Amino acid sequence: MALSKRITGLTGGGSDGWDVYYKAKEMMDAGEDVAMLTIGEHDIGTDDSILDAMHAATKAGHVGYSMFNGNLNLRETVAERVTARTGVATTPDNVLVVPGGQAGLFAAHHAACDEGDRALYIDPFYATYPGTIRAVGAQDVAVAARPERMFQPAPADIAAAAAEGAKSLLINTPNNPTGAVYGRETLEGIARVCQEHDMWLISDEVYDTQLWEGDHLSPRMLDGMAERTLVIGSLSKSHAMTGSRIGWVVGPEEAISHMGNLSTHTTYGVAGFVQEAACYALAKGDAFEAQVAAPFRRRRDLVLGLLEGQDVVRPIPAQGAMFVMLDVRATGLSGEEFALRLLDRHKVAVMPGESFGRAAAGHVRVALTVADDRLGEALARLVEMASDLAGVAA
Amino acid sequence: MALSKRITGLTGGGSDGWDVYYKAKEMMDAGEDVAMLTIGEHDIGTDDSILDAMHAATKAGHVGYSMFNGNLNLRETVAERVTARTGVATTPDNVLVVPGGQAGLFAAHHAACDEGDRALYIDPFYATYPGTIRAVGAQDVAVAARPERMFQPAPADIAAAAAEGAKSLLINTPNNPTGAVYGRETLEGIARVCQEHDMWLISDEVYDTQLWEGDHLSPRMLDGMAERTLVIGSLSKSHAMTGSRIGWVVGPEEAISHMGNLSTHTTYGVAGFVQEAACYALAKGDAFEAQVAAPFRRRRDLVLGLLEGQDVVRPIPAQGAMFVMLDVRATGLSGEEFALRLLDRHKVAVMPGESFGRAAAGHVRVALTVADDRLGEALARLVEMASDLAGVAA
Repeated sequence: MALSKRITGLTGGGSDGWDVYYKAKEMMDAGEDVAMLTIGEHDIGTDDSILDAMHAATKAGHVGYSMFNGNLNLRETVAERVTARTGVATTPDNVLVVPGGQAGLFAAHHAACDEGDRALYIDPFYATYPGTIRAVGAQDVAVAARPERMFQPAPADIAAAAAEGAKSLLINTPNNPTGAVYGRETLEGIARVCQEHDMWLISDEVYDTQLWEGDHLSPRMLDGMAERTLVIGSLSKSHAMTGSRIGWVVGPEEAISHMGNLSTHTTYGVAGFVQEAACYALAKGDAFEAQVAAPFRRRRDLVLGLLEGQDVVRPIPAQGAMFVMLDVRATGLSGEEFALRLLDRHKVAVMPGESFGRAAAGHVRVALTVADDRLGEALARLVEMASDLAGVAA
Repeated sequence: MALSKRITGLTGGGSDGWDVYYKAKEMMDAGEDVAMLTIGEHDIGTDDSILDAMHAATKAGHVGYSMFNGNLNLRETVAERVTARTGVATTPDNVLVVPGGQAGLFAAHHAACDEGDRALYIDPFYATYPGTIRAVGAQDVAVAARPERMFQPAPADIAAAAAEGAKSLLINTPNNPTGAVYGRETLEGIARVCQEHDMWLISDEVYDTQLWEGDHLSPRMLDGMAERTLVIGSLSKSHAMTGSRIGWVVGPEEAISHMGNLSTHTTYGVAGFVQEAACYALAKGDAFEAQVAAPFRRRRDLVLGLLEGQDVVRPIPAQGAMFVMLDVRATGLSGEEFALRLLDRHKVAVMPGESFGRAAAGHVRVALTVADDRLGEALARLVEMASDLAGVAA
């Protein structure tokens, strides 16, 4: 039976560089001891107090249909949080509750793009970005952010891509996979391009509590941008709630209202007990969020420290998020070749830069998601292998 | 800022007959005592044992990312259930786990239809059907199932609509809102039309545990249909788990595989602890499902009994599901006028037939979701008002 072109074309076909990940999983399933530095998932689980709050919510009766666009108490909580952190007046009518950040990315692109429209995104990119655009029938158009600019995108490159027509631009700051945090200059340039070309800005800010250098600037704060920006937020990274599937989109009332209609037809709302758990989690405050983020900051410093005194493996010093990107071009291998060899010979699994697009070729991404001593050992093996390849002493 | 035509056109605009529902909610919020016979939600909550199983799953560590297409143990459980109940060999590769039946309806249409394709559905219909089709950019084409055929659709009518081209047909048996259960003759006719016109059959079977007359026949069991049928299942109705948002799609391996890719880009999978709760709930077996269904069977009989001895309000004797559809055309009012008057004068809220399409005009749908005595009183008021309108003694 014939399937839709949209769904069969969703993944784009071909190798996507995730072979290393699947191979590492297989090795682990077979009982091998692999240092798994691939996926952006905390090594702590969701806090017991949040799980208990969720259970209490089920027993208090939050087990029936909830509001499709999100329950008012959670939308209020998110609106207050966003207002406090950005200074942009935000009401519950600006907030759509969705089952996780990915659902927000999908809904935002659905709202912005019709069939065949061009939708821009920055390369290197989080793995689902191009497929999300294709899932709504739009054309995915990558704009490279180059390593020599520390992966800050150049507004002129975005303008060039927009000149051929585009309905939206998707950015992610703090950035996965590069750890870049977009500075004011970059974001003001992006805002200008969005206004000149009348584009939606879809701003994925799910790492906004993981900042190691500078401050997080949400582009919705910039002049004239609140009316054309859809911000994706989530509790996955900030509160170690990846498995609860809970997040939000913040944007103009009219867009949020239509996206609420979309939710009625895609997910029929989010479990009420998960929404109650989210309210509880958000009320835990800044100290809790800092505590969840702390291991990544510590390990990021650890990795940068371990890489001092050699220049075969060159880190992009992560300004935020739970990853460090390493330039391994001096080894002569592609990121994928390097990662496969590291897995085969040293049982250390990292993601090839190529799995995040062309701009990160010759790099590997290290997730800071294992215990410090384990991470240190894995990095030592990585540097040793790179040094051997480059013909220098580690 | 311009939004996509697809999202702004999603609800079709205009009154959709849900005013009665929203008005009743407002009255209740203002403290008025309204008999709410509108929405298909159990008056019992989710069983405590299922909620406890969910909590135990969170504490056992099911709080991280799960498989995007569903965890293997739940897909195995669903495959075994479907194989046992239908006799059609079904493996985990035929099963996609989704966050509720609505997510399954969306994914199935996304897989079947490209932009502009015609997608058929039966009128009267569940409220989200046309919007679900429009959400994937397809054209929603209604085929009437007429009250004089007890709302069994006529295959010839479907064939006539398919003759202009169509990629899919959406059916729902047992049916919401009519209570019809499609018989073998109807389903074999539908199967023939699907094969002749090379259409996908999307079969919403979420009420398959609520059968009052005859047996549930899944069209996937018919000759040549397993390869072109996508069955939507859910624990919402069978296990009173509406708020947990958990369901599945069963279909051919290739389609299910592509729909798994779609899940990666729309929801990123379903919460692992909810999947564990679903496994637990499904293991409770037939007796538990019968217990959840029992009140609806009892109340359906109660309603039919109360309507005997008069012929102003003519019931469509529900063969399944948690509703009874009443023909009130003898009152001279539309279903919407009748429902609004009943709410205003007697504080009884029922859904106008018009909110489910044109074919149910002049009808109202009564949800069997309040206690028996409350339901009885509400029906007595409904009959009295109808009799007054028709100028006969109740």
